[in-house]
This record gives sequence, structure tokens and C-alpha cells, in this order.
Amino acid sequence: MKEDFKFIEGGVTAAAGYTAHGLNCGLNPDKNKNDLALVYSEKQCNAAAVYTTNKVKGAPILVTKRHLDNNGGKARAIIANSKNANTCNANGIEIADGMAKLVADNMNIPEDEVIVASTGVIGEVMSIEPFKNSIKDLVAGLSKDGHLRAENAIMTTDTVPKEIAVEFSLGGKKCVLGGMAKGSGMIHPNMATTLNFLTTDVSISSDMLHSALSEIVTVTYNCLTIDGDTSTNDMVSVMANGMAENAEINDVGEDFDKFKEALYIVMEQLTRMLAKDGEGATKLIEVHVTKAPSKDCAIKVAKSVAGSSLFKCAIFGEDANWGRIACAVGYTDEDFDIMLMDCDLTSDAGVIPVCRNGYGVAFSEEEAAKVLKEDEIIVNICLNQGDYDAKAWGCDLTYDYVKINGDYRS
Amino acid sequence: MKEDFKFIEGGVTAAAGYTAHGLNCGLNPDKNKNDLALVYSEKQCNAAAVYTTNKVKGAPILVTKRHLDNNGGKARAIIANSKNANTCNANGIEIADGMAKLVADNMNIPEDEVIVASTGVIGEVMSIEPFKNSIKDLVAGLSKDGHLRAENAIMTTDTVPKEIAVEFSLGGKKCVLGGMAKGSGMIHPNMATTLNFLTTDVSISSDMLHSALSEIVTVTYNCLTIDGDTSTNDMVSVMANGMAENAEINDVGEDFDKFKEALYIVMEQLTRMLAKDGEGATKLIEVHVTKAPSKDCAIKVAKSVAGSSLFKCAIFGEDANWGRIACAVGYTDEDFDIMLMDCDLTSDAGVIPVCRNGYGVAFSEEEAAKVLKEDEIIVNICLNQGDYDAKAWGCDLTYDYVKINGDYRS
Repeated sequence: MKEDFKFIEGGVTAAAGYTAHGLNCGLNPDKNKNDLALVYSEKQCNAAAVYTTNKVKGAPILVTKRHLDNNGGKARAIIANSKNANTCNANGIEIADGMAKLVADNMNIPEDEVIVASTGVIGEVMSIEPFKNSIKDLVAGLSKDGHLRAENAIMTTDTVPKEIAVEFSLGGKKCVLGGMAKGSGMIHPNMATTLNFLTTDVSISSDMLHSALSEIVTVTYNCLTIDGDTSTNDMVSVMANGMAENAEINDVGEDFDKFKEALYIVMEQLTRMLAKDGEGATKLIEVHVTKAPSKDCAIKVAKSVAGSSLFKCAIFGEDANWGRIACAVGYTDEDFDIMLMDCDLTSDAGVIPVCRNGYGVAFSEEEAAKVLKEDEIIVNICLNQGDYDAKAWGCDLTYDYVKINGDYRS
Repeated sequence: MKEDFKFIEGGVTAAAGYTAHGLNCGLNPDKNKNDLALVYSEKQCNAAAVYTTNKVKGAPILVTKRHLDNNGGKARAIIANSKNANTCNANGIEIADGMAKLVADNMNIPEDEVIVASTGVIGEVMSIEPFKNSIKDLVAGLSKDGHLRAENAIMTTDTVPKEIAVEFSLGGKKCVLGGMAKGSGMIHPNMATTLNFLTTDVSISSDMLHSALSEIVTVTYNCLTIDGDTSTNDMVSVMANGMAENAEINDVGEDFDKFKEALYIVMEQLTRMLAKDGEGATKLIEVHVTKAPSKDCAIKVAKSVAGSSLFKCAIFGEDANWGRIACAVGYTDEDFDIMLMDCDLTSDAGVIPVCRNGYGVAFSEEEAAKVLKEDEIIVNICLNQGDYDAKAWGCDLTYDYVKINGDYRS
């Protein structure tokens, strides 16, 4: 990371003007696990969001989209619950609207400035009662140090909290961008994948915020795959309250580029965390594709390898079965010459060249085993036919993935 | 099945004029497991084949395609080995050509009438020696009852042999169509998936044979998914030696339709066997989509559900988590109204309606558990917006899939 950027603590409340809280409102029978989160900005924010591309959309997605579309991209608060996805249930819109209204009434803000999100089981009816009963506590508990309580509330099968924040400057003003995310199954590219809430004190127009988010999502979250299933509820939202008092970013230029850099840093870190904590995962897989004939091709090849069930199993087994990489590169839906491909398996323990010009090269199984023992594996694929590169992130496929998903509802 | 068709024994040698043999030539260190198969027709056959769409193609695919393209679709024999895929290795073409030449020389047939196939590990160099050393035994062992020895030779992680044959009549002549197949990982639609060798004594031109094969592959093998990985070596070939002495099928019409029916029956049965014996599978999943707005849409929806890792895990866990069906229907890349969808989970133990008009309906978990205990689960999805239907086949995702693929090479 460049010197211009510095990681700091605080996640979704790291930027000026944000507070958060999380509690158990009774959706989750485990009282030690939060299930309801609130994030709040003391000033109105410009906001942008990207949503799942699944035709089945959770009611909260429809409500949030309606809000931001109708008010020109303004937001003050996020309410999010886990345990029930509020999707494919007949009273879904009513509940999502009800959640927004509770926040609006109790915080004295417009209803359409509330972002609503849910994650959990699909197709089960919900009641507004748990939200009604806990909204006062939720609002009363808002504080600068509530970021981890909020993060805990949106986690489902996640095993570790995922938050990050970065400090940088724009025109001499100190700026912060932070965020939190939850995984960890039903995650696949071509959409916003998972719940991700980003907050910043940068001053930037809704349009530019949306433009930055769309661009960076393409090369971060959308290059993440856990299991090939595109969820019904995924959302990435970013709120910008302008409290850093930089000159508002209204157009492309140096400031916009720097903001996008910050956004990339935060989103790449969260993407890596999501991949590493994929359901049942023991290893992070990062695929780097270089010298591809187009950006699209680089992205597709990287995703194809990161998403191959067979390759994911091989990595779990620490087996240098690189033929499965070749196979996954080969079934990518793009035109290129496979016979120019070089491939290395790398980790902190070393580099193993496994393929040159499309053919296997002899390697020491002992050395390979050492490289694959590490818990972060990088696959370097050089296509040798262009100038474009891309990364994709995934994880190994393990017994625990099957275990977790064989009995998720109970 | 209609009365016009009757299942018979004999698999790939059930039709008149075919013999087969299989033996261990030393590729597989387990001497009790065959690794080399030969199938032979006493008369020259019209032949057609479809191949993997993977850009990485095994050398045997390239050689077989060259043969059939150059000689106008003629074949007499198939040689196939397991254990080494003869793919991504520098001497691949030399070996595949060498295998064809050995058969041609020892059987006195043209080299280009030999279909060559390999399956196994990718990227390892091969030697022609094992083939050279065993070709005489292989030819000498050819017999009518060699079909299971041949099938055994092409199996990899398959746990059961897969063969089928059907008897029917064309213009009063008794005809037989049979075949054998091997699975059971790296299986995904959009290609011929796996090695499948079909033989018939029907008299039919190469063009009509190719037309029938292409049509039926689309709705059988190409609707099969085990793990989303499209192999580098897959092939379905069909050989027709005309020994049934029916009037040659040269055009569309009643006889052609009946032949296609027989082909559908054989290929559907093999597809079901491949799905049921998918790596690590404990259950067959059959997805029936009805009332779709187009054939393509019906196929895509069926495949999307059959291929969902999350749904496959739920079926392994016998968990009626139908939201994952809705999710997979929703991320199908086709335009339709999800809010018209009905869905039932069915098996020999009963029918559980889980969704009506896009919303979940209450069901008894006890009844659902009973239905999902069976080892063949049918998912009925009615889109209620058209006249097209399709089936897709898959299997559950289990601990054993991970185990098998975590350490496949050793």
C-alpha cells in the first residue's frame, strides 16, 4: 500500500460522524449473538449502492433501491438483521418498510434515508415485533465504539468479524473510509456479493460515489467466489457525509482517483477477508492473471480458476494438481491461445512453476507440498498475449463447507 | 418407456457385430483394475461424435476429431485408457496417434477409423510402451461378453459400471442400441461430458447420426452437472454398423424419430447413472422444469438448480431448504417472472409443495424429512409462463466429494 494510505481501527464508524450499535432482538435464539445492527450518520449522506443480480430479490433490496432511486441517493442510517433473509415471504415488503419506518420515527429522519438489509434463511415469514421491541435500545446504544457490535449482528456463518478502515488526505483534509462486511456462503461474482456497508467522511456527489463504487466492485467483490451461488440479498452500500470538509468531488480528476484508490484498498481487504472466511475454508486462494488480451478475459480466467470445485478441493488436499487449473482456464468463455499459458503456484514458502507454454513442467512434489501447506495460496497465470491483468479471490472446498450447508436451517 | 422399446443386457456389445475387451496394461498399479479398453465392429460403421468445449483439449480429442472429419465419419474401433488423460503433455499427439496406429496395424483397419479416448490425470507425460506391450492381448480378448471388461477399463472414480442397451424395431427389423459411460467428477453441461461410447446395428447415414446425437446430447448429457467443471477430454461417440439391415435412415421421418427415441432412452439412462454415481454422491437429483417461456430457459433453470452447491449440500443433509432452489432459479441468466413459480420436492415417499407464486408455503418438516430420505429426489419447478419443459440431473455434494478430490492424484 502506498504511503499516502494508512490502516486505522474503527471499521464502519472510523470516519467522522458515524456511530453504530448491534444487539440481539430475538431473531437468533442464541442471546450472545447479535442479530440487529444500526449504523447512523449525524449528517445526511450522499449514498450509492449496488445490489444482487438475482431475479429473486429480498424485500430489503427492493425497498432500499426504491429509497435511493427516489431521493437522488441520500441516506442517514442503515438497519440490518441476520437470521431471516426476508425473501420469498408474502409479508416481505411490509416488514422491510416497517424496519425503515421504525428507524425513521425513532431518529426523526426521513424514511427513505434508511438503508434496509437482511440476511439469513429464505422463505420464512417474519414479524415486525422483535424490531419494534428493540428499536429504542438500538438507537440508545449508538456509539463510536459500536462498530463491532454492529458487525457481530450481520454475521451468519462468518467465523471472524470483517472490518477495515483507511486514512488518507484530500486537499490537505484528513479523510477516512471504512466498512464492515459479512460472508460467507452463497457468494459469487456478478453482483455485490454479501452485505457490505462502507462509510466515509469524504465530500463527494452521489453520482461520483456511484461511479466509483461500480468501478471498484467490478474488480473486487465481483471477483470473489465461494460457491457459485449468487445470493438474493446482497448489497454493497457506501455513505459519504462530507464531514472531512474536502472540496466536494463532483467530477473525475486527481481527488476522484485518490478516493477510488482508498475504495479499492478497503474493498480489496474486505474481499480477501470474505474469501478467507468462506464457509468451511481453511485456505485463501488468490488468482492473479497477467498479460491477458482484455480486462474481461483476465477477470473471467481469474474467476474461473478461483471458482473451480475440483481445484478448490485440490488446494484443501494440498495437492499440486495443476491440470485442474488448466482445465478451468480452458473452459473460460473467452477466446485466447491456451498454448501460450505459463502458471506458477506460490505462497510465502516459495514458487513452484507447474506449466510453461501450455505443457506441464516437472516439479518436486516435496517443494510443492511445502508451498501448499501455507494458508494463503497465490496462483499466477500469465497468458502471454496482451496487457491486461486481474485478480480473483476464493477459498478451498472442505468437509466443513458440506457440513455447514448440509444443515444450515437447524 | 413405450412398449416399442425393451431394455436388454450387453451394453456396448449388445448390438449385432460388436465385440469388446478390457485389461490392465500397467497404467494403473492396481492389477485388478482394467485401464485399457477396445471396442470393435466387424463391419465399418458410420460414426458421429461430440467433444468437450474446453479450450484445453486432450490429444485424443484432437486425433479422433481429425479422423472423423477427414474420413467423412467412418469408424471400426475405439481404444480408450484411464489413469492418464493424455492432456497438456508435450508428447500427447504422438501417443494418441500411436494408440490408433497400434489398433490399426493389429486389426488391419485404417488408422483413421480408430476412435481414441483417454481419461485421468492431466499434464503427465505418457509412454507408448504399455499399449505396445498389451495390444496383442487386447485384440485377442475381444468377445461379445467383453463389454463389462471394457467398461471397467474406462472407469476412474466411478463406483459402479454404467451400461445400458435397448431393443426396438425399424421397418420390421430388430435393432439394438447400447452403450457404456464413465463419470464421475469434472462433469458439467455445455459439452459431451465424460466418456460415452454408443454402438448400434441400425443403418443410418453419418449425417443423420450426427444430427440425432447433437439433438439428444442437448437434453441429456448436457443437462448433467456434477461439479461445474468442464473436462478437457469428454466425448460422446456413436457408431452404427447397419447390421440390423433396416432401410438406411437418410432423412428425417418416422424411422429417424424412432431412432432418436431409442437414443434418448439410452442417453437418459446413462445420464441418470452418471449423476447418481457422481463423485461422493449419495443421492440423485433430478430437476423437472415445466411451463417455461422457451426451451432454453427450461434447460437453464433446470441446470442452475441441479448445479447449485448450496442446494446440493442441503439435499445431502436431507434439509428442505427450498430457498436455495428459489435462489438458483433466480440467478439463471434468462428473463422470466419469478413470482409465478410453483415448486414441489418429490420422491417415492411423497410430494411436498414448498412454493406457490414465488412465496414459501408452510409444510411439515417431518413429511419433508421422509421425502428427502429417499435416494432419488425430484424437484418439480413449474414456471407457469409458457409451454416448454426440460430435465437436468445432478447429485448431492458430500464429504466424500471433497475427500476424493482433495487427493485425487495419489
